[in-house]
Formats: sequence, structure tokens, C-alpha cells
Amino acid sequence: DHIIVIGWNARSREILKTICSYVNSVPVTLIDETLEENPLPHQNLHFVKGNPQRDDVLMKASVMDARQLIITADQNKDEHQADMHSILTLIAVKGMNPSLPCIVEILTTEQMKNAKRAGADEIVQTNLLTSFVMISSLTSREMVTAFLSLLRQIDQRRLGIEPILTDHIGANFRDVSISLMNEDILILGIKRGEEMIIHPPHPFSLQAEDLLITIKN
Amino acid sequence: DHIIVIGWNARSREILKTICSYVNSVPVTLIDETLEENPLPHQNLHFVKGNPQRDDVLMKASVMDARQLIITADQNKDEHQADMHSILTLIAVKGMNPSLPCIVEILTTEQMKNAKRAGADEIVQTNLLTSFVMISSLTSREMVTAFLSLLRQIDQRRLGIEPILTDHIGANFRDVSISLMNEDILILGIKRGEEMIIHPPHPFSLQAEDLLITIKN
Ligand SMILES: [Ca+2]
Ligand SMILES: [Ca+2]
Repeated sequence: DHIIVIGWNARSREILKTICSYVNSVPVTLIDETLEENPLPHQNLHFVKGNPQRDDVLMKASVMDARQLIITADQNKDEHQADMHSILTLIAVKGMNPSLPCIVEILTTEQMKNAKRAGADEIVQTNLLTSFVMISSLTSREMVTAFLSLLRQIDQRRLGIEPILTDHIGANFRDVSISLMNEDILILGIKRGEEMIIHPPHPFSLQAEDLLITIKN
Repeated sequence: DHIIVIGWNARSREILKTICSYVNSVPVTLIDETLEENPLPHQNLHFVKGNPQRDDVLMKASVMDARQLIITADQNKDEHQADMHSILTLIAVKGMNPSLPCIVEILTTEQMKNAKRAGADEIVQTNLLTSFVMISSLTSREMVTAFLSLLRQIDQRRLGIEPILTDHIGANFRDVSISLMNEDILILGIKRGEEMIIHPPHPFSLQAEDLLITIKN
């Protein structure tokens, strides 16, 4: 019941440091081909050296018993090569444990589709995220700072998603917002099916299946 | 009065595509050493081939007349090498045009400080952003989706920062939030000096210099 992280780089270092710092920290296994030894030996990290596309390496990392797996892009390859490498790794992993939830970092838009086809459960398109932040920096540095603060709120588990009360079915979003504000809960918007609606325009009626996106103190 | 983007990769491609797609699109110049020709010739992009650390190359890109410059990390170097390269480029640029606002992508935490020393006006630490999203994917996929929706709100220019009304000086954050909610404005929090406070805990008094972080429709 451990988390497997594939690839050693500044990104995975942050991921490992964060996961290992949790109070009830989950055991984590790092697979990397180039590292000579465990980069974080004091942090309860298990290290497997080897090519993550090989069954014996995945076996050593106990891929059959893992709860989640993260594939990071290989920083020493060009973007297209890195994506192909990640997708081949994903195929090897899913071949051995089809039900293991896999989060895959993809660098090029072209390979998004193939990562999905290969069974990625979540795709993080790093470059879109980065380019977005860089473009925002051009026009509104303060917006980027506000946005990054908000990002930290998620980290602090202040942000939540919860069902609406039966009392609120059919009620106006604005009225519910004001009523919850008096309980010190800020409603950012709602999740309706797959759609996220941030601050819906007034008037907006809540439905039974809606989920509220909240920020609490 | 153009924007200069340094380095060709999936990130800069997104940046260039977005900037060039604006209705009142600013002229953009791309500097890259490895590309043979203009990668987006139909999109009003000017291309300069060469090493961005060289004065003659920066001259060709009219670095003296630019309004902003973005340095992206070189995807074909290891992270440390890429950061050193970016910082040297920054030093060359600032040597020629000290007042040009420069946004620099930095991959390693170690080089953040040096990028600042070299005069970076804004540092985008890609790896922190990516690792954050990947860690959040482990625990709360819905939170990541909510967060990315919010990110799109910034893009749609629905998010704003504005001074408080003189009427609101000394007022309670909650009361002002409720009053503005009736005008269809959602207040996320405030900016006080350099600090962003998202949904401050009640009671919270507004001060004259506070800025409101708003989402409008
Ligand atoms: Ca690379
Ligand atoms: Ca690299």
C-alpha cells in the first residue's frame, strides 16, 4: 500500500519531500535508472535502481501492491522523447497492474491522446500550466500571486467540495452564499456533473446533485 | 515595443500561440539557437536564430526597444545546467537593457536566489507548480479540477484586484463581502502590502490600503 514515483528530478524531489513530510506518511518508492543511491535515505524512502519499463524493476518496486503511481517526465530527454518514454513506462506498469491509478506528466500536446489510450488515470500537462503562469505574469503579476496563494489554500486543506443541504435545493446560489458566509464559509462556486462553475451569475438555482466548492478557516 | 521570448519548446510554443492569438496582438520575437527557421511564420512572429547570451543576437532581437522578456528553461539540458544558462542569459539581457522587465523560468530551488541577484523581475518556479499539482492529484483530483477552473477565470479576466471604497475602511470583511455579493461580485480575499489573505477569518477589519481580490461576471 505504497506510492511509487518514477524518475528523479527537481519535480519528483519536491513530491517526495512533501509526501514524506506528512505526519501519517505513506511509504514511498522511487524508481530511477541514473541515480547511484537513495537520494533521501533519512526520509523513509525506498529506492529501486533500474529502467522502469522492465518487469523485474517494477517487481522490485512491488508494483502489484502499490496504491498509486506517478510518472514524471525525464528531464534529460527532449520533450517528445520524454513523453514516449513515459507512455512506454505506463504501458509496462498497466500490464502488470491494470487497476493501479497512474498520474502521468506529459510535456507535448501531441502525446496527451496516447497517454490516455495507454491508460493514464490523470494527466498533468506541465507545459500548459507553466506557460499559463508565464503569460499571466506578462499582464498581471498580482493575479499570479493571488492565484498562487489560492493554490496554497488547497494545500492547507481549506478548500473543500461538499454536497448541498436538502434545505438548499432550489435555493438561489447568492442566498446560500450569504447564509454560509455567516458561518465563515466562502463558496467559490459549484460542481455540477463534470462542470465547474465559479461564481455563477445571479440568479442561479441550486440542484440536488450540485456540490459546493468551499473555502473554510 | 515588442515581447521577446527566449527558447523554443512546448512551453514557449503555448506562450507564443496565446500571445499571437490576442486580438490586439503585440509583436513577438523568438530567440532560439537550435531551430532552423521560424516555427510559426503565419502568426506574426519574428524569429532570431542564435545564442541569447550574445550581444549581437540580442541586438538583432532589438532588446533595447522591447517591453518585456521571457526566458524559458532549456529542455535539452539537465536542470542545473538549464538554470545556469537562463541566469547567464538574464545577465546579458540586463547588461544591455537594465530596465527591461524579465520573467525567468527556474527549475531548481538552489538557483532561485541567483536569478534574483541577477535581476529577474519575476521568477516562475515550474517544478514547484508541477509537483504541487501532482501531489494534489494523489489526494483530491476534484480539488485540482476546481483549481484549474479558477485558473481559467484569471484568463477570462474575471478575476480582479481593486482598492476598497472609502466607505468600507474599518468595515468588517464579512459585511463588505455580503454587500458586494448583492452586486454580483465575489470577494476571495484581500491583498495587504505584499501579503495575500484568502477568506480571512471573521471578524476582520478592512484598512484603507487594502485591495480586494474579486471575481466578477
Ligand atoms: Ca529534456
Ligand atoms: Ca533537460
